[in-house]
Amino acid sequence: MTAIYTVFIISDGTGITAEKFATSLLLQFDFEYQIIRVPFVDDIDKAHAAYQQICQHILQSSDQAKNTLVFTSLVHESFTQIIHQVTEKNIWVLDLFQDLMSSLELKLGRRAKKTINQSHSMRDLGQYEARIDAIDYALKHDDGQSHQHLNQADVILIGVSRTGKTPTSLYLAMQYGLKAANYPLIPEDFLRQTIPRVLLDNRHKLYGLSIEPQRLASIRGQRRPHSHYACIENCLYEVEQAILIFRRFDIPFISSTDQSIEEIAINILQKLAIKNPLE
Amino acid sequence: MTAIYTVFIISDGTGITAEKFATSLLLQFDFEYQIIRVPFVDDIDKAHAAYQQICQHILQSSDQAKNTLVFTSLVHESFTQIIHQVTEKNIWVLDLFQDLMSSLELKLGRRAKKTINQSHSMRDLGQYEARIDAIDYALKHDDGQSHQHLNQADVILIGVSRTGKTPTSLYLAMQYGLKAANYPLIPEDFLRQTIPRVLLDNRHKLYGLSIEPQRLASIRGQRRPHSHYACIENCLYEVEQAILIFRRFDIPFISSTDQSIEEIAINILQKLAIKNPLE
Repeated sequence: MTAIYTVFIISDGTGITAEKFATSLLLQFDFEYQIIRVPFVDDIDKAHAAYQQICQHILQSSDQAKNTLVFTSLVHESFTQIIHQVTEKNIWVLDLFQDLMSSLELKLGRRAKKTINQSHSMRDLGQYEARIDAIDYALKHDDGQSHQHLNQADVILIGVSRTGKTPTSLYLAMQYGLKAANYPLIPEDFLRQTIPRVLLDNRHKLYGLSIEPQRLASIRGQRRPHSHYACIENCLYEVEQAILIFRRFDIPFISSTDQSIEEIAINILQKLAIKNPLE
Repeated sequence: MTAIYTVFIISDGTGITAEKFATSLLLQFDFEYQIIRVPFVDDIDKAHAAYQQICQHILQSSDQAKNTLVFTSLVHESFTQIIHQVTEKNIWVLDLFQDLMSSLELKLGRRAKKTINQSHSMRDLGQYEARIDAIDYALKHDDGQSHQHLNQADVILIGVSRTGKTPTSLYLAMQYGLKAANYPLIPEDFLRQTIPRVLLDNRHKLYGLSIEPQRLASIRGQRRPHSHYACIENCLYEVEQAILIFRRFDIPFISSTDQSIEEIAINILQKLAIKNPLE
């Protein structure tokens, strides 16, 4: 590992997208860094303050200018220029936004609006409320709590306990405003080799989550060590039975062993051909 | 409004970051568009398939090539080049990644690893489990359900019912792996003009959510029309009392009226000077 870098993210909004984007660039290199977010830089004074903050950082920390990276994603060139003055102190600046926006201006044959803080702002109240409603729905329909209104679900996740159903449901609700219910497969389902009728009635919305039995045993063991619930024999049995049910009812499924919440969510959107209702 | 555009997002990972980034660019222009995600383009065959999918779209839809935009964020230039062949059909392509990655290569004096699908993959199992644990924590400590382990919280949101505490807690858990509890202020708290001792013991973690009484009445009215809970007089009273409590105990607070979940979350991170434990 080489020296630690400091990476500033200067945004006129939350900076969430800029930070994620910058991180995806930085991950292409092996080096240690810390991120300092400077969000809501939406007027000239805040641009000057952000400039000062970067300058102060160089003075007060053991960091050298050459180990400081500044990513900007500001809509207004005048604000970007203020930040850009740090280059006089040998600090490197990369603008994430301006060049791409200019390209898009050329393609579309019109000027960008240069409206600040669009990406994560509450642009559309209806859309916002749909998201909140979806989160409420996911919470009410978590872990098979309620079979009411399952016909309103956009997707119903199904799998044994601790396969990632709850986080995935909440993610789908939060990011895409989708009404995601989830149903935990239980020993009774395995004995009967079927699932409740209300689920079968919504079969086209079902999506299965599977997992490696070893990993399941490890996750469950952290919660209930030395239990039947967590033992490898039971985990092997439950995972196998779940897959039999998925196959029997032709339910598409994915293993959550090596997949992040985001990857599972995108796979579900693709497979069930769900459009993003928030678009 | 001008004609509807189709925007393809071609990514070797989930494409979530690329889509958000592209959207923040597109929002700078007033035009209608639909997004077609093409995620997980992580080998040559999938690159060719993505190319075909774009070509087919032009053939099969009423869209013209000039109304089709393609954004790519692929690590490998060879995949990008395959997609880029659509320019021969007069389709416009904008690469979000290559130029910025080249700039970073120059600055850092080393080559990018060109590792596919880093941004939302399960890179670090420990980090992933921290996130899942944080979501579990948020669910267990939602709506003042449990006062146990509040000392383990990174942040405790406080406010009257329907100010956005639950979605914000879940967002902080999901995106930043923060243990976020939340506590709903109730009439007893107003009568006593104080809050439970366990909250005062964790006062530096408290963050208040306020809201415009009119908006609160509207949100509550959708759930329980014509109730005392939703009437404007009660909403005015509760919001006023909550602010008195925030002021009395010097609890920083924000109005959620015009703020999205993301904006509130970033404000909290700033104010409580919480670093992202997932970094």
